[in-house]
Amino acid sequence: MTDTPVCVLGLGLIGGSLMRAAQAAGRDVFGYNRSLDGVAAARLDGFDATATLDQALARAAESDAVIVLAVPMPALPVMLEHIRRVAPDCALTDVTSVKGAVLREVEAHGLRSRFVGGHPMTGTAHSGWAAGSQELFAGTAWVVSVDDDVDALVFADVMNLALDCRAFVVPARSDEHDAAAAAISHLPHLLAEALAVTAGDVPLAFALAAGSFRDGTRVAATAPELVRAMCEANSEELLATLDRTLGLLTQARNHLAAHTSVADLVDAGHAARIRYDSFSRPDILHVTVGAENWREELAAAGRAGGVIRSALPVRGNRG
Amino acid sequence: MTDTPVCVLGLGLIGGSLMRAAQAAGRDVFGYNRSLDGVAAARLDGFDATATLDQALARAAESDAVIVLAVPMPALPVMLEHIRRVAPDCALTDVTSVKGAVLREVEAHGLRSRFVGGHPMTGTAHSGWAAGSQELFAGTAWVVSVDDDVDALVFADVMNLALDCRAFVVPARSDEHDAAAAAISHLPHLLAEALAVTAGDVPLAFALAAGSFRDGTRVAATAPELVRAMCEANSEELLATLDRTLGLLTQARNHLAAHTSVADLVDAGHAARIRYDSFSRPDILHVTVGAENWREELAAAGRAGGVIRSALPVRGNRG
Repeated sequence: MTDTPVCVLGLGLIGGSLMRAAQAAGRDVFGYNRSLDGVAAARLDGFDATATLDQALARAAESDAVIVLAVPMPALPVMLEHIRRVAPDCALTDVTSVKGAVLREVEAHGLRSRFVGGHPMTGTAHSGWAAGSQELFAGTAWVVSVDDDVDALVFADVMNLALDCRAFVVPARSDEHDAAAAAISHLPHLLAEALAVTAGDVPLAFALAAGSFRDGTRVAATAPELVRAMCEANSEELLATLDRTLGLLTQARNHLAAHTSVADLVDAGHAARIRYDSFSRPDILHVTVGAENWREELAAAGRAGGVIRSALPVRGNRG
Repeated sequence: MTDTPVCVLGLGLIGGSLMRAAQAAGRDVFGYNRSLDGVAAARLDGFDATATLDQALARAAESDAVIVLAVPMPALPVMLEHIRRVAPDCALTDVTSVKGAVLREVEAHGLRSRFVGGHPMTGTAHSGWAAGSQELFAGTAWVVSVDDDVDALVFADVMNLALDCRAFVVPARSDEHDAAAAAISHLPHLLAEALAVTAGDVPLAFALAAGSFRDGTRVAATAPELVRAMCEANSEELLATLDRTLGLLTQARNHLAAHTSVADLVDAGHAARIRYDSFSRPDILHVTVGAENWREELAAAGRAGGVIRSALPVRGNRG
């Protein structure tokens, strides 16, 4: 349990849900939103929201709140500029789907020592305050960064926030997170788009489309701006996984052209999916945040499928 | 309504479900299965099954049953050999996912005049008698072939069987079916396999995998033999759609490498998926099976999304 107040910047689907979930957990929560509509909607639901950024940040600085960046990537530099000026000592996290690019922005603004990145792996096809729910994070994964230099107390603040929102925490390095996100989220989006376009040009295809096509193209219904933003923000990692997939598909293509078997790809794909189905999620229990090698131990545990379901003990290492 | 008995060859997922559904509709149904285990399981559930092929076929010939080929492609030649010898005058259909290859086998055995191909667009990840259900076809598409030379009465037999199983019928030419099936079924399988393999090699990927990955790889859990069989049997059409997808993905790859936008693919994919979501399925009502140009009219209606939900009138043309 912790009493750290929470300052949420951006009250869209994720920020708005986080505000609700943290308040439901008994936290003191307040937030900022750029549009007055969003502020009015949050207030109407009984939440403490303002459209004046520096006012929210001044309060965060006074109350030693943890600040959550819940704005889209393009809005990040402006937020960080204000934070550096008004609340540079607050613990800082984010909820963005690409961690490397955020880390570079945070570093460029001199705030890296107080920052621990986060990525709640949840969402819906809708957006905005109204789409939010205090249940959005319940039972879902929330990645919390364990890069080489993260501060133990800030990590603990972010871990506790995620647990208060009823998520479980997956500790991961930012670079590994981005490589994994490319493979399990950004690549599937590109494959879904390509499948939809290909089938859309074949007469009778939509008339026959069933489960394989519906599942394979479901994420193509996501707003194109969001898909572009996440793919382009993670272009380097996405490029590597896309090239791997192109290699596999080109081999299969050559087998089909030569009337030889596509067994290599099909057997390997089946085996990988079966491994995924039996992937286990053991609880991480025996790591003390801030103890020697705690970051490496958490990264290794997360890589192996481990998750934090209740708060780990913390040994402070703050300045 | 029709009283034509049904002889099902092969009591796996599809054949076994068809047997249950046709019997539930009041049909006289009997079947053959190669393995004694399958026969015993069907009998235990109260169905009329034998492991002696010629016995089932002799009964089909006597009762003028419609014979359903529900065996895997490799078993087709042996079945057709027996049918030519024992029950050459029975109406004949199949439930195979590739129509051109089946048509060529049937023709090679001199049975084309009594054959109308079928393809129920349904399934589960499981197989065998035990996986079957009389509900498997309810509310799903069942393609029935309208190639240039199909017999109106055989077409009517197959249409009525599909409707009795509570499917709706999509009339389609075999060649158009195979091109569409490549795009909406075989290609999604290959993409799912490639995605599973790619992600399987990335540390942390399974730990973070959520909806996009699960949906995108769901069909990779299908038995590899089935995936190979359908892809390899439809290699020509699959090659064409796979090349189109490889072209789209390679363009996106080049944009990522050049740090330019992937908007072309993402916008087109989103537009295609949205078109699919609003694709309408009007009832085909005003065609008489066996009337002038009935095959061309049904093929055009099916291509436009039309489906047969209740039996069309039939004008007999049986020799």
